[in-house]
Amino acid sequence: MKDELNIVKVGGKLIEDETALDNVLGAFASMKSPKLLVHGGGNKASELESRLGLKPRMVGGRRITSLESLDVVVMVYAGLLNKNLVASLQGRGCIAIGMSGADGDLVRARKRPVSDLDYGYAGDVTGINLLTLQQLLEAGLSPVVCALSHNGKGQLLNTNADTIATEIAIAASNRYKTQLHYCFDLPGVLEDPNDPGSVIQELNLNTYKSLREEGVISGGMLPKLDNCFRALEYGVSNIRIGGSQLISGAPQPHTVLMQ
Amino acid sequence: MKDELNIVKVGGKLIEDETALDNVLGAFASMKSPKLLVHGGGNKASELESRLGLKPRMVGGRRITSLESLDVVVMVYAGLLNKNLVASLQGRGCIAIGMSGADGDLVRARKRPVSDLDYGYAGDVTGINLLTLQQLLEAGLSPVVCALSHNGKGQLLNTNADTIATEIAIAASNRYKTQLHYCFDLPGVLEDPNDPGSVIQELNLNTYKSLREEGVISGGMLPKLDNCFRALEYGVSNIRIGGSQLISGAPQPHTVLMQ
Repeated sequence: MKDELNIVKVGGKLIEDETALDNVLGAFASMKSPKLLVHGGGNKASELESRLGLKPRMVGGRRITSLESLDVVVMVYAGLLNKNLVASLQGRGCIAIGMSGADGDLVRARKRPVSDLDYGYAGDVTGINLLTLQQLLEAGLSPVVCALSHNGKGQLLNTNADTIATEIAIAASNRYKTQLHYCFDLPGVLEDPNDPGSVIQELNLNTYKSLREEGVISGGMLPKLDNCFRALEYGVSNIRIGGSQLISGAPQPHTVLMQ
Repeated sequence: MKDELNIVKVGGKLIEDETALDNVLGAFASMKSPKLLVHGGGNKASELESRLGLKPRMVGGRRITSLESLDVVVMVYAGLLNKNLVASLQGRGCIAIGMSGADGDLVRARKRPVSDLDYGYAGDVTGINLLTLQQLLEAGLSPVVCALSHNGKGQLLNTNADTIATEIAIAASNRYKTQLHYCFDLPGVLEDPNDPGSVIQELNLNTYKSLREEGVISGGMLPKLDNCFRALEYGVSNIRIGGSQLISGAPQPHTVLMQ
């Protein structure tokens, strides 16, 4: 039987809410190993860009990453956020190890080809180093992975955190019974974006397609859910989407994805 | 017989000289494992502080680390510098893994007590996690460690890179035949600071004490050499100080420390 692996993605806005983040980190530290955390960057990178006189450019929720703004996301994601998360987990007795995709060659990517739009130093994932992941997990370490990849030739690249979580989960499912938990600032996938009480408790691919066509599910949820259904298709055993209590064991509404 | 471990410290100014840094990284990547790189921060942190409207405050070459300037050093050391070094080493076929002292609980420290001077969030090393180090090295990974520690309770601390290199070397010497190589912007310890040709080829503790009293060796070399002789005393087998060619195998003048 495969060992279990829990992968927890902490969403951008949640990372800026101290109480919510405390909930997630406390629950993550208490989870049995092996486990891995993936985090986004929230608005911190844009804030720093503005303070440095750069103009954050976002298209469809994705950052246009100039060389200067790559430096900023590297500083914020791999530095400020990642290291404070790691230190905080250590304070909770969890032996975390912070990583970008370059560390241990964990996440390889290629620079996104320029089509209608030049995303700059944005990377599309081409491979996950499962050996590194296994070695760290077997050493009892809990990787904390930020939203950066590399091209194997010395270049760091900016890569969406949901995508990194999904790709790691898919690669890991060859070796582990992998569960993927998306914690973010909403209690789950909502039928009515304005009503936090409208959590869809179970969502399968057919229902998702219908709701997407009807426009009930839209915006930033679409790439997230596309990632999720891809992960289910490629062997991830269980995917849940919810708020900061999602991994706490408390009986809270949340969305479970089904094939 | 103990396995060999090579620890390479890359000095602050060297890290800002692209050619010199290329020399060191190329040679480091070619070194047989196990190996570990420790790097300083150079002037990048002060540059970013200035751009953000903060005033860098240095006393005796040490940074007074306010909470705001801690954020800056975390971004620059653990983010910008560490991740670019790691990506660059990956591009050279070296499976590097970037770390702060918080990662894997590698370097614990306590906040420096306030005496005449309040150094702020500066940490004095209290322990090295040799288990983490061994696990990473045995996995074939090469740690790249920046000048940050943590207190085990969630707080990151700014810690001198020479000190981190020394403390890791001392801890590692229990398990490994440890060699410590200090690469910096001079060709070695100089008899005349203005003459790069005046490299002292062998330096023992007695000679060091005399030269220090005579004022021949002074300034920033003193804490570096104090660290070195401490490391020799505590079991590090070989310590060398030199320029960017130090670990390349090229026959260059450099300083070898002797007990």
